[in-house]
Amino acid sequence: MTRTIVASATKEIIIGFDQPFCVIGERINPTGRKKLAAEMVAGNFETVIKDALEQAAAGATMLDVNAGVTAVDPNATEPALLVQTLEIVQGLVDLPLSIDSSVTGAIEAALKVAKGRPLVNSVTGEEEKLEAILPLVKKYNVPVVAISNDETGISMDPDVRFAVAKKIVERAADYGIPAHDVVVDPLVMPIGALGDAGRQVFALLRRLREELKVNTTCGLSNISFGLPHRHGINGAFIPMVIGAGMTSAIMNPCRPQEMEAVRGANVLNGTDENCTTWIKTYKDYKPGEHAAPAPVAVNAPGEAAANNGGRRRGGREARMARG
Amino acid sequence: MTRTIVASATKEIIIGFDQPFCVIGERINPTGRKKLAAEMVAGNFETVIKDALEQAAAGATMLDVNAGVTAVDPNATEPALLVQTLEIVQGLVDLPLSIDSSVTGAIEAALKVAKGRPLVNSVTGEEEKLEAILPLVKKYNVPVVAISNDETGISMDPDVRFAVAKKIVERAADYGIPAHDVVVDPLVMPIGALGDAGRQVFALLRRLREELKVNTTCGLSNISFGLPHRHGINGAFIPMVIGAGMTSAIMNPCRPQEMEAVRGANVLNGTDENCTTWIKTYKDYKPGEHAAPAPVAVNAPGEAAANNGGRRRGGREARMARG
Repeated sequence: MTRTIVASATKEIIIGFDQPFCVIGERINPTGRKKLAAEMVAGNFETVIKDALEQAAAGATMLDVNAGVTAVDPNATEPALLVQTLEIVQGLVDLPLSIDSSVTGAIEAALKVAKGRPLVNSVTGEEEKLEAILPLVKKYNVPVVAISNDETGISMDPDVRFAVAKKIVERAADYGIPAHDVVVDPLVMPIGALGDAGRQVFALLRRLREELKVNTTCGLSNISFGLPHRHGINGAFIPMVIGAGMTSAIMNPCRPQEMEAVRGANVLNGTDENCTTWIKTYKDYKPGEHAAPAPVAVNAPGEAAANNGGRRRGGREARMARG
Repeated sequence: MTRTIVASATKEIIIGFDQPFCVIGERINPTGRKKLAAEMVAGNFETVIKDALEQAAAGATMLDVNAGVTAVDPNATEPALLVQTLEIVQGLVDLPLSIDSSVTGAIEAALKVAKGRPLVNSVTGEEEKLEAILPLVKKYNVPVVAISNDETGISMDPDVRFAVAKKIVERAADYGIPAHDVVVDPLVMPIGALGDAGRQVFALLRRLREELKVNTTCGLSNISFGLPHRHGINGAFIPMVIGAGMTSAIMNPCRPQEMEAVRGANVLNGTDENCTTWIKTYKDYKPGEHAAPAPVAVNAPGEAAANNGGRRRGGREARMARG
């Protein structure tokens, strides 16, 4: 049985086919959030703290931590900022963390101070990335997210994306990293632009589970990019990917509709034993609460759209736009 | 490609793996609705008319028509009542109909007057049923729902349920009825009572699609029986069964959360081309509308609970309780 173990100083979580879906909170990420980026650069972590506490309260299993503010030289500035952000978050909540950066030096700096067993987010199939990240993953004995694109970008052919994932798993093995410590992101395309995006990812997830026997993740809200009522598409996508074998996602746990879909799919997938979490969460449910927005304070009018998980272009979307 | 064709006088619908999910409206059914039963016996079809129009307006693909009022001798009374109900409904809406009865004489009487190509609901693996229903299905050249239980009841072993389904498909073939005219109901158990109910049905659906190559259906809301916030469980179950290959369900189309799950899963399954239906339905969506109850007029205080699709024990549930 494939089991990816992540941990904070005090809490261990298993990602696996027989486990509740692992919700990796996406909000601590200044990509596309100018105000948050400006705050972090100025040493103001109020929003980071609020996002950490709110995501934990909303039921996140892990938190992604990204400090990728726009900088002239990210290699010079991002390591210290990521370390500072990570230390604040791990001092605040007991959830395992995901260290999210495109700067190798920032990942290593964060690995040095991270408690427990964080997840490294991410390596790709690009040669330069493989050679930079995999030795760190081995050295610190941590799991890693493997994104199935390479030097040629993101292939529209799912067979090519599977082949890239397979290459990363094999290269990881060369470094002594077991397949259960590689969490593959098969890359989710917007269904509004590519009508086959859903079926592609369902088929890929089954192959990744059955052939590579790896855990999987994705930037979940990409699927609904550009469509109206994105939470509805996300809320249907979650049960479908869980049914197809996906075991985690980077998503906004402060969205009630998405979290309800996760909890419902856990019940149906047999990972919420005796429906305990479902009954605890919804025993006093009243119709009309369902779509109520999460109680997220908005800092400024300009931030309103950016705080809406449905419209914000997060790190994954930004990455895909470059692909 | 498996294609089950159903039709009203003017409208043809294909049930199939490459088609939008077929929503068979369940509401025209007096089982467990004492007031409706009393109305129908008294020749008052106001509720039937209301249910037909509301389900059509809510987006049902087909309507199930059941006239199974409690009677001393159903064989004597049900044929005429089913014919009367069917004629009213087919005079009112242009949707294909499902003729739902446990009385063979009622099914035949309804088949004689039904326009287009109705679905017969249902045959089981019981010898007596097979011999009564399959000749009618052949004679009238219509498709039939095959429920995977037999004389021994409903097996808790999904392999046995598959074997019963296979037996019905084979027996149908002996009568000259092709597999594409048999729509198998693998039987959905309440997940609150049987933690494995979801995974059982997902595995069964894949086998029914891949091995028997048949379309499938179920009494959808059985899955959430006994749990709080049933619409949430139903809303997660729908995308999962669609992802596993289910092509229709007998359900309440007047529930917005369930219908949103159907529409979302159609987008993701590639059967809502260019997301046309999704965009048309949700382009002006405002948060908070999601969980609003459908505008169902309530006739009397006693009817309120019965009108709530989440709590009513419909025909399928009643059948299962006997199984």
